Amino acid sequence: MSKSAIRPIVRFGLAEPTRVDDALVVERPVEFRLSGVPVAVLMRSPGDDEALARGFALSESIILHPSEFITIERAGQTEDDDRWDIVLRPDVTIDPEQFRRNTYTSSSCGVCGKASIDAVRIAAPVLPPGPKPSRTMISQMPETMRAVQSEFQLTGGIHAAAAFTRDGDLVAVYEDIGRHNAVDKLIGHLAEDHWPLHEFVMMVSGRISFEIVQKSGVVGIPIICGVSAASSLAAELGDELGMTVVGFVRDGSFNVYCGADRIST
Amino acid sequence: MSKSAIRPIVRFGLAEPTRVDDALVVERPVEFRLSGVPVAVLMRSPGDDEALARGFALSESIILHPSEFITIERAGQTEDDDRWDIVLRPDVTIDPEQFRRNTYTSSSCGVCGKASIDAVRIAAPVLPPGPKPSRTMISQMPETMRAVQSEFQLTGGIHAAAAFTRDGDLVAVYEDIGRHNAVDKLIGHLAEDHWPLHEFVMMVSGRISFEIVQKSGVVGIPIICGVSAASSLAAELGDELGMTVVGFVRDGSFNVYCGADRIST
Repeated sequence: MSKSAIRPIVRFGLAEPTRVDDALVVERPVEFRLSGVPVAVLMRSPGDDEALARGFALSESIILHPSEFITIERAGQTEDDDRWDIVLRPDVTIDPEQFRRNTYTSSSCGVCGKASIDAVRIAAPVLPPGPKPSRTMISQMPETMRAVQSEFQLTGGIHAAAAFTRDGDLVAVYEDIGRHNAVDKLIGHLAEDHWPLHEFVMMVSGRISFEIVQKSGVVGIPIICGVSAASSLAAELGDELGMTVVGFVRDGSFNVYCGADRIST
Repeated sequence: MSKSAIRPIVRFGLAEPTRVDDALVVERPVEFRLSGVPVAVLMRSPGDDEALARGFALSESIILHPSEFITIERAGQTEDDDRWDIVLRPDVTIDPEQFRRNTYTSSSCGVCGKASIDAVRIAAPVLPPGPKPSRTMISQMPETMRAVQSEFQLTGGIHAAAAFTRDGDLVAVYEDIGRHNAVDKLIGHLAEDHWPLHEFVMMVSGRISFEIVQKSGVVGIPIICGVSAASSLAAELGDELGMTVVGFVRDGSFNVYCGADRIST
């Protein structure tokens, strides 16, 4: 299924209202199951569901290593039925019932921010020094990412997440209507050949939330950059994890919330 | 607790990197319980939690009428413990276990978009003709909404949702780091004195997703406008519910995805 759909709309502008066909971003739910038990329902842009399943399972600590994941298989009978079974290696035993709960609950691990941060710190590997990007490299990342997004996706409100090497070369970009899904698809792709993801610098198109830092920490990404702000809890968690969190990468400037020692000057 | 927090950051600009204090948007989890059973954990901006609880319970069909809700009471012992008991009228009996599940699951009611739409259509009241806003009124709503947002919130990536009367008068604005929470806080506020919310026109700062149309449909808001795009599933659901969905309200123009007959010309 395509990431966009054409629908008739009425455009009100300076002239008379006109009926035109417009491209809308497609939003569809997908359900992932473990041993037949639904563990997640996500509203996502169609496509890259195998990467999404792998990345989601890793970043939410459902599986602990990419090799535990084999593939996803359609659980329903039809093309329209977006229920998928996550197939794990036969020797991996997981009680799916423990994930049968609110995703937000599993992400925040209780309600106290401190408890959440402690829980993530336990799940997250110790971050190495990792890449030391230059100011120039960071400043150029948003433009490099945008250059591979389509015009529709630039205007249609799709979020993007990209990975760069320590030298600033673009490795992959994923786009999704959900900001977390773009990150999970990227993680799922990178984890096919790399683990943990210590050698990558990640760029996201939007705001850096707690959950994006959490997901990146769990899979070992040491540097996250965004074109918009980080939340207080995101900066706090990044600081605790020894991560570099960079916001407002725009017009040659940016703000470093924590881990500024990784920026080479 | 404030919606923003001050943290030291390092700003990289044209000159030497400088350490400054920056205002970050605060993101904190809140847990709502029914009879001691957690029914939702939301990442939200602190504040207006009573409106959030009321709006969330109504828009997710946990309660069916505002009069069923009495108040929320802190479940934890300390100011930092954001666990709240939703207190319902004594004669309202709800099995909280039925809501002990993934919020996305409850929002999408299975994975087939058609099934979701059918389920929402059953829960949503039939919409009356309702307000007939003019082109001028719609075009002015974003600016009116922005005028009451603070400078910090304009730059800090907080979402806003506002309600207007049929004559274009601003009734209320709520801001939150989560787009759904801004809508739920607004719904919770309006539902104190009005039900269903047939007389209001809603404006949101961001993208119009399926879940925003769903929440609005359940509480009876007939017109939703946004400064950004609607998703395909949002337009489809709005159309099914007989709602007016308007996107890209910018510079005197806008796109009407469905229900264009409510726009007076």
